[in-house]
Amino acid sequence: MSMPPSPACAFASDNAAGAHPLVLEALVEANHGHALAYGEDRWTKRCEALFDELFGQPVTTLLAVNGTGANVLALAGLLNQAEAVLCSDWSHINVDETGAPERVLGAKLIPLRSVAGRVSVAEVERACGALGNPHHAQPGVLSLTQSTEWGTCYSVDDIGALVEAAHARGLRVHLDGARIANAVAALGHGVGGLREMVVETGVDAISFGGTKNGLFGAEAVIFLNLDLAARGQYLRKQVNQLASKMRFISAQFCAALEDGRWLDWAGHANAMASELHRATAPLLPEGAIGSPEVNSVFPVLPSEAAATLRDWCFFWDWDTTADQYRWMTAWDTSPDDISRFAAGVAHVLGR
Amino acid sequence: MSMPPSPACAFASDNAAGAHPLVLEALVEANHGHALAYGEDRWTKRCEALFDELFGQPVTTLLAVNGTGANVLALAGLLNQAEAVLCSDWSHINVDETGAPERVLGAKLIPLRSVAGRVSVAEVERACGALGNPHHAQPGVLSLTQSTEWGTCYSVDDIGALVEAAHARGLRVHLDGARIANAVAALGHGVGGLREMVVETGVDAISFGGTKNGLFGAEAVIFLNLDLAARGQYLRKQVNQLASKMRFISAQFCAALEDGRWLDWAGHANAMASELHRATAPLLPEGAIGSPEVNSVFPVLPSEAAATLRDWCFFWDWDTTADQYRWMTAWDTSPDDISRFAAGVAHVLGR
Amino acid sequence: MSMPPSPACAFASDNAAGAHPLVLEALVEANHGHALAYGEDRWTKRCEALFDELFGQPVTTLLAVNGTGANVLALAGLLNQAEAVLCSDWSHINVDETGAPERVLGAKLIPLRSVAGRVSVAEVERACGALGNPHHAQPGVLSLTQSTEWGTCYSVDDIGALVEAAHARGLRVHLDGARIANAVAALGHGVGGLREMVVETGVDAISFGGTKNGLFGAEAVIFLNLDLAARGQYLRKQVNQLASKMRFISAQFCAALEDGRWLDWAGHANAMASELHRATAPLLPEGAIGSPEVNSVFPVLPSEAAATLRDWCFFWDWDTTADQYRWMTAWDTSPDDISRFAAGVAHVLGR
Amino acid sequence: MSMPPSPACAFASDNAAGAHPLVLEALVEANHGHALAYGEDRWTKRCEALFDELFGQPVTTLLAVNGTGANVLALAGLLNQAEAVLCSDWSHINVDETGAPERVLGAKLIPLRSVAGRVSVAEVERACGALGNPHHAQPGVLSLTQSTEWGTCYSVDDIGALVEAAHARGLRVHLDGARIANAVAALGHGVGGLREMVVETGVDAISFGGTKNGLFGAEAVIFLNLDLAARGQYLRKQVNQLASKMRFISAQFCAALEDGRWLDWAGHANAMASELHRATAPLLPEGAIGSPEVNSVFPVLPSEAAATLRDWCFFWDWDTTADQYRWMTAWDTSPDDISRFAAGVAHVLGR
Repeated sequence: MSMPPSPACAFASDNAAGAHPLVLEALVEANHGHALAYGEDRWTKRCEALFDELFGQPVTTLLAVNGTGANVLALAGLLNQAEAVLCSDWSHINVDETGAPERVLGAKLIPLRSVAGRVSVAEVERACGALGNPHHAQPGVLSLTQSTEWGTCYSVDDIGALVEAAHARGLRVHLDGARIANAVAALGHGVGGLREMVVETGVDAISFGGTKNGLFGAEAVIFLNLDLAARGQYLRKQVNQLASKMRFISAQFCAALEDGRWLDWAGHANAMASELHRATAPLLPEGAIGSPEVNSVFPVLPSEAAATLRDWCFFWDWDTTADQYRWMTAWDTSPDDISRFAAGVAHVLGR
Repeated sequence: MSMPPSPACAFASDNAAGAHPLVLEALVEANHGHALAYGEDRWTKRCEALFDELFGQPVTTLLAVNGTGANVLALAGLLNQAEAVLCSDWSHINVDETGAPERVLGAKLIPLRSVAGRVSVAEVERACGALGNPHHAQPGVLSLTQSTEWGTCYSVDDIGALVEAAHARGLRVHLDGARIANAVAALGHGVGGLREMVVETGVDAISFGGTKNGLFGAEAVIFLNLDLAARGQYLRKQVNQLASKMRFISAQFCAALEDGRWLDWAGHANAMASELHRATAPLLPEGAIGSPEVNSVFPVLPSEAAATLRDWCFFWDWDTTADQYRWMTAWDTSPDDISRFAAGVAHVLGR
Repeated sequence: MSMPPSPACAFASDNAAGAHPLVLEALVEANHGHALAYGEDRWTKRCEALFDELFGQPVTTLLAVNGTGANVLALAGLLNQAEAVLCSDWSHINVDETGAPERVLGAKLIPLRSVAGRVSVAEVERACGALGNPHHAQPGVLSLTQSTEWGTCYSVDDIGALVEAAHARGLRVHLDGARIANAVAALGHGVGGLREMVVETGVDAISFGGTKNGLFGAEAVIFLNLDLAARGQYLRKQVNQLASKMRFISAQFCAALEDGRWLDWAGHANAMASELHRATAPLLPEGAIGSPEVNSVFPVLPSEAAATLRDWCFFWDWDTTADQYRWMTAWDTSPDDISRFAAGVAHVLGR
Repeated sequence: MSMPPSPACAFASDNAAGAHPLVLEALVEANHGHALAYGEDRWTKRCEALFDELFGQPVTTLLAVNGTGANVLALAGLLNQAEAVLCSDWSHINVDETGAPERVLGAKLIPLRSVAGRVSVAEVERACGALGNPHHAQPGVLSLTQSTEWGTCYSVDDIGALVEAAHARGLRVHLDGARIANAVAALGHGVGGLREMVVETGVDAISFGGTKNGLFGAEAVIFLNLDLAARGQYLRKQVNQLASKMRFISAQFCAALEDGRWLDWAGHANAMASELHRATAPLLPEGAIGSPEVNSVFPVLPSEAAATLRDWCFFWDWDTTADQYRWMTAWDTSPDDISRFAAGVAHVLGR
């Protein structure tokens, strides 16, 4: 009994998708003649202006070449000597960056207990008990992921409270926004939602993701706190994040930021995850799949069925001890991919 | 008296050029559907096979995202604990990487006196006098740049002797080949020349440049010494050089490595530098411009003339204390660019 | 109602005690004339011979100047590039060294859940699930504390099983033995117990504490695995642990290692903790104070009583959320100190 | 023909000498009863007060355990993110610390050409040409050694001019004063000379040496710039320089700082070097030995004579390519040592 036709796009990750046609178009357009390297070009100027406009105020934009690098660069800019980073125990910087932060920053990461990927003000306060004690690493930065590794979002109020707790104790706040577009799209207030989320709350610096949202490979570190950005250009080169042919990084972001496309693309991915949930939840036992906040769902599946399913259309494990998996949508996931995938799920589960 | 029409391409740097049309074509071709991230894709497999073929033996290929990062990654793979790097006082890692090697590697760089960008066996031996003394940083890696920052090349024999001196003292050898293509093209022995230069001499690892030779932005770290490559994949992520949508890095190199194009492109740039020298040397005083070995010339010019010239067609200072400048050609420099530029030189010098 | 006469020695920490008279005597003896610096002296040779004799085999002894430094040095010798350290969540290196390991090693510390300060084979195995995944820091060293920060000991079998689990996965094992003397004394097998505990189990390197056991300030890093010690002398200077007038470090250890004194001193401290427990347990509620394995007890006390008591004779908080404190004995704690202190406890508790 | 009786003290180094009897006496005095660790003791308070008094203003005193560690700690306090250290090419931090600064600080050391161990304002200015260029490490600290590794001193005016040049460009100034006592003694203005040299000139932080001047092993990092000292206590632990039984470090400095003894001891060492010069210069060819500024002379000797001499009474090579050696005096060198040594020199040279 063979499987039905498989989806065109699998559900492995949003970084398994390619680049949006408009991003490709922008790259082609930028590939004419010579332009000075390292950001002395008109695409980079344009990109910086677009970010200022997006945040509704002058920001310092440092384009970067990958997500780990962007996080390390942002943290480098925010940390003082002898300081540590508070982050969730599930955070990408703590778990999925091979120790790059510790190596490049020379700083300790202090993992906080999280619930559904989110840390609480109480946990931040508890960790700040170390402040002033010369035997303990001194918390200097709080790093939050939005949307989180668990596909959840902090509310604007959550972020506000966390920033307030951090600032009150002298810490600065970093937002790992590898999927910030998905979080802002989920909030549903357009660009205004971005400003509510990070400007009005007082976030100091953001890793503003591009690669997972339809770019070939481009990230931006945005310093909302301009004082802390002063050494950014030196730090960027020092942490291996300065691209020489910068125009090709900038042009990608220009394409995404024009006309609010970045939000459309992320919104589409989110919608596809909702659709995926809608289509598969009835096929699964009660409680086996939660409703998505952004572009991922985390179904619990019988391991044999999961194995058959993923041989046919790939996706990753999430928590093997609980038979939990991750299905992730992207800017290019289509309704047809969803129906085909749901058909496959139905097939393997015998529904 | 106005300047003549300016060249289409300036002479600032090979990284001011865009990407070759075939590289763009390859990127477009790779941008279809989903592919697993981080190198689990067919373009990366193909790229790795092409590098094995190029070197005539299995090598470990770690694609990277920029030149400083590639150097740091290669050095990280070659260094043991408590070791230092010997390099030329003019080397990119020593002068032009904002201290990234020291920061990310935690290792000392020991600059050796160079002549025309090249270091000698005698200087290496002298620096190795520190070996065994617990108060001195222990040389562990010799890093050579080929072609050098001064537009010169080490001969194959030079490299052989340096590698031998290094290996005899327990050091490993890194080649910063940001412009290795230009050096191999200059040698004139095709792919065989590459193997003579780095395989037969015993070089341990290479930063194999792509960006300066017609790619959008892609570098490769090649470990010829496979033992030393064992930790490479972890180090790559740790030093912020792992691209998620790797296929777009790999596809660029595939385009360059097919049919020996990388050598053609670099050979063209070299030829244009020769042509530039031929066209401008007669306009300058005896000895004011040396004959190029690769794709750059370093003319000495009256500063006022230089200023006028660069306002019209940009290039960089080289040594301001000596009124020396750098004119650099690229894969896309045309004979017409050369004649126009020479006309400009003639114009400002009143010839 | 005034407090009774206070003890001569408080119960703050074993590092609040001074040096043993025999250590002072040795220092005085060593302070004659000139001796070459950095270990080229007869006291250091003697000290190295005493450590070889102690372990019953040739070891590499690197004398160090403080405990954090000794731990960092030992770990530096055991770590390869891109590796992380597994340790207990309560370990000194994780909690009480201000991030020195992360800063100086550039390596991630991965805290394992501990029970009474001890980690389990199961936790080590779980953490080793990251091995081979390029996105996760690669466990390279397991660091155990013996006796632990909670005043407990691993049994010889515990250590054997942990070393076996670590070695089977390619990790090396470090023992933070800031209080190894107390642990060996507690085992009760004399010097043979030390060898059972660390030589026969296969531990690779030890931070062998001296300062907490009657020295002025001296630690030793002992590499049982001689291969891993090869770079130790360079690493020692690099991590700021090389004393110039080394004879004064060595002479301290010589005094302690002669005639098994180190075990006598630690055994005395252990015995005083038992005596302290015996004298105070009847004054406290059932379960408020556990029986000590080494030289500390962790009583739960009413906070007001604790405050009065510590104003009179100082000791530190342990877990403020549980009203738990730490009373620690030292080489110089006397039976009279115990009776006086117990009288004070009785006094404040109204017994 | 046998050598005459050898001196009691050799001329290897001031760190081959032991501790002054008054330092030992202070240690003995401090070794009574318990005292809280990590500086919460009365000797440390006293030591801090003595340093405030010495500098005629409140300073931040961070006692440290060795010279390399003191330098690294001082530099850590002075450096901002992404900054480099300017220092002499002969400086201890550049040549004799096994790369500890690069490893622990993650910062580049930029060696400046020195003459007789001293750097010039012109060299500092030239190196500061890198400021503002994102491709070059950014000079952030100028480190000077006083007295220098070549046994010379900067004049107060030299230091003033260097500090002014550094501060004018935004750099802070560190003084490696491993032998600052010898330099102040040589200046001949007593404690006032210290203040002229470092307070009035505006030096920001000093590694104030003790070990080479009659202590067992103790260094102090003095921040004259109190703002920059704010993170010092955390940095000290992080760079492995926090002693637990701090009273034994403090007591040593107390003994040295009381009654200006530190200057007497260093002045004696200086006087002995003068005497050594006076006694041996007539035995050597014209120009073979320069007159000392502090406590070392650098004679040029026939290598065979030098070998015979050092077998009899040890001293170190200085520049083997020039047959130059170093003879160094200490606080305990006696006039009798000088006459005996001069007799030996006469003997081997056949005078």
